Amino acid sequence: MAIDDAPPARAGHTGGTGHGSQESHESPSPHGSLIDPYVGRYAARAREMIASEIRALFAVAARPEIVSLAGGMPYITALPLDAVGEMAGQLVADRGSVALQYMSAQGDPGLRECICDVMALEGVRAHPDEVVVTVGSQQALDLITRIFVDPGDVVLAEGPSYVGALGTFASYQANVIHVPMDDDGLIPEALAETITRLGAQGKRAKFLYTVPSFHNPGGVTLSAERRAQVLETCQRAGLLVIEDNPYGLLGFDGEPLRALRADDAHGVVYLGTFSKTIAPGLRVGWALAPPGIRDKLVLAAEAAVLCHSSFAQLMVREYLTGQPWREQVKVFRELYRERRDAMLEALGAVMPDGCRWTRPAGGFYVWLQLPPGLNSKAMLPRAISSRVAYVPGTGFYADGAGSGHLRLSYCFPEPGRIREGVRRLAEVVGTEIELRATFGAVPASYRASGAGPADLTGPAGADTPQ
Amino acid sequence: MAIDDAPPARAGHTGGTGHGSQESHESPSPHGSLIDPYVGRYAARAREMIASEIRALFAVAARPEIVSLAGGMPYITALPLDAVGEMAGQLVADRGSVALQYMSAQGDPGLRECICDVMALEGVRAHPDEVVVTVGSQQALDLITRIFVDPGDVVLAEGPSYVGALGTFASYQANVIHVPMDDDGLIPEALAETITRLGAQGKRAKFLYTVPSFHNPGGVTLSAERRAQVLETCQRAGLLVIEDNPYGLLGFDGEPLRALRADDAHGVVYLGTFSKTIAPGLRVGWALAPPGIRDKLVLAAEAAVLCHSSFAQLMVREYLTGQPWREQVKVFRELYRERRDAMLEALGAVMPDGCRWTRPAGGFYVWLQLPPGLNSKAMLPRAISSRVAYVPGTGFYADGAGSGHLRLSYCFPEPGRIREGVRRLAEVVGTEIELRATFGAVPASYRASGAGPADLTGPAGADTPQ
Repeated sequence: MAIDDAPPARAGHTGGTGHGSQESHESPSPHGSLIDPYVGRYAARAREMIASEIRALFAVAARPEIVSLAGGMPYITALPLDAVGEMAGQLVADRGSVALQYMSAQGDPGLRECICDVMALEGVRAHPDEVVVTVGSQQALDLITRIFVDPGDVVLAEGPSYVGALGTFASYQANVIHVPMDDDGLIPEALAETITRLGAQGKRAKFLYTVPSFHNPGGVTLSAERRAQVLETCQRAGLLVIEDNPYGLLGFDGEPLRALRADDAHGVVYLGTFSKTIAPGLRVGWALAPPGIRDKLVLAAEAAVLCHSSFAQLMVREYLTGQPWREQVKVFRELYRERRDAMLEALGAVMPDGCRWTRPAGGFYVWLQLPPGLNSKAMLPRAISSRVAYVPGTGFYADGAGSGHLRLSYCFPEPGRIREGVRRLAEVVGTEIELRATFGAVPASYRASGAGPADLTGPAGADTPQ
Repeated sequence: MAIDDAPPARAGHTGGTGHGSQESHESPSPHGSLIDPYVGRYAARAREMIASEIRALFAVAARPEIVSLAGGMPYITALPLDAVGEMAGQLVADRGSVALQYMSAQGDPGLRECICDVMALEGVRAHPDEVVVTVGSQQALDLITRIFVDPGDVVLAEGPSYVGALGTFASYQANVIHVPMDDDGLIPEALAETITRLGAQGKRAKFLYTVPSFHNPGGVTLSAERRAQVLETCQRAGLLVIEDNPYGLLGFDGEPLRALRADDAHGVVYLGTFSKTIAPGLRVGWALAPPGIRDKLVLAAEAAVLCHSSFAQLMVREYLTGQPWREQVKVFRELYRERRDAMLEALGAVMPDGCRWTRPAGGFYVWLQLPPGLNSKAMLPRAISSRVAYVPGTGFYADGAGSGHLRLSYCFPEPGRIREGVRRLAEVVGTEIELRATFGAVPASYRASGAGPADLTGPAGADTPQ
């Protein structure tokens, strides 16, 4: 899915205990105390739903004086809002009795045709019957997990992996096993080894979850050669592939890459979204799946939300048929390319020795590796004091790894702000390095739990996620 | 929740196996056959996701020559579409960069304030912090079930109960135990007995799911006296109440009823929706829950859809603050009252002896009991041949009961169509009665599986659901 975690997916809400408790009845439970009286009653899966520890920090990071390189919000101000507004008004006035009514759980047939046209740009041949419209591709991911994953089932995912996917997998009590990446994305040999190792333990993964293009948070892309290898490995193992492709049309060089689904209609479920190419506030995503899986997805969608918003679906359909959407995607691409360039230039100019980072050819993110001994979660409060925010790497692993990494987003701030944010970050990192040189380690109060040294060093000489 | 099941909730999608299978790779599974190659791989819960047997019939029932008394679609043509369209256009043009962006998982704070004002009409005192905005109240129901129900857990629900709730409960492998209703809604003594019986078996229900006002499909309303009794019974047992109230403002007589939640802020989770009072195509519903449960709901919502549509949420907020929505609800009430009257008059005038039905004081539905020996599911094909459609009662029970009942909706067709539909239905029922009198029973080919005689007779003299 890889929508985004603007502030923090896998995180809670803002607090507040509410008022209005002058009711006439009292339950025998210890109501009114700070203890949740239902704490012993939740389903086992609810124990996996935990608010992020860094949630409170992100509330602070939203202040205007702070440069946030944390959130993955698309820069939708670049949309032609007047034209879109006129379109919205017309849609309600002319076809409100359809646009405001219930819709089938599978989604609007006309929109599903448009979706097939969009996917054709990545070499995918599909029929609208195979498409299920979802509430963002996050819901597609949720429904896929819902129909496939029993508690304890293994799911394979890149390490690092999209934080929102990890949250969904956790909520279904999946056992996530990470498969390493390098500059060319997921490593096929590592995938094959993982499958073999699981087999030796009598286990078989339910699926491989992968973001092959412009990875979130990795910033790397699976090479064409490896795409064939990954597909072949999965086919040999009978392993279903969940291809999450939110950024596929936002590549900075040449034509869109050929999707995995383009070369395997039976073994790949493709997840897409208009959150990056149009706007996230409509929450229109989709899954393209073989018929048996599609049937289950439709039933699961119906149980989950009855149907998606007709209005949102018809807005997207109108936009795709009536607006110059391909030109608008080009506008987005140029805008993000300029910001990517600003970030990479600034990183190269100011980051201290020992830092390494990826060089994304599309999408929204750079994955940065800190010098040995530094801890990105422990460093975050200091960064926010210095008026810059990022997402610590630990959020992108299900196994406690990632404390030596962090994710930087260049999608939302303007280039000048990006440069300023990177400059501030470099200062913070520099200070941390000095502290470490002086005292031998960062002070204990800055150490986060679960931060082992294993993930602090990447492959020698490679500025890649691992 | 009790949105609706227009055509059929708990049902599948329309068929089609798709094309586009000229891919270069083949998985080892028997792809391309009619057998789903993933059939052995789904999660246990997916086995509970089954397409309704009557699905195909409903595709036929959508034909214009058929009077559908089946679907629960609100009559949104009565909305001021020009004004709503203008509002939508303005919203995008003026505040598109917010309305089209991501939103917090809990939902827009301004909308949550408006929701508290709406609930105040039913005596509910609540703080916006206690509200979670959801994708229709169906999602609220899904999330509540997700956080509370482990496979095999008991959920109590009225018999009959909302079909969409039963689908959600089934998808989480809940064990639904029905509690009978009569003309005054859920029977408190029967509830207490059920709780005691479960206790004797060492079981405790996770919650009671109830639609106290203008029940779907029952058409009855829990009396004020019984509201206190139900709350007291649940408080004594420490049983959480899920109050699903989609029709609360659509009562035909006097002021809105006092919600259960108005008298118990700690033991009741209230589910609401704008699908009936504004429009279902925006998919804006909510849950009002005590803080501990609310926290879990927000985390579950984030895992499920990341966040709801900002655009849909701000549309509802604008509508509630800028449009005369209370007057519009009055328009809906009068419109539905007129249709309810048309249906009750027609039923009284033409239905054969032995039929009994409820007399709703609000909402969308009449629950009709057939004469002994008749089977509503077996009769449906004949009804559709006679150009009238309804929903057989079996869909509203988790235990196979309901074959002697059917649900009639008066919300969508105009009064003349309602009268014509009831006339056609009366003829069909009359023919069935004659057939039964002549042959002793309906022909075997019309008998549905699971249709026992136990639920064919109601309490003597009562035209009530049971």
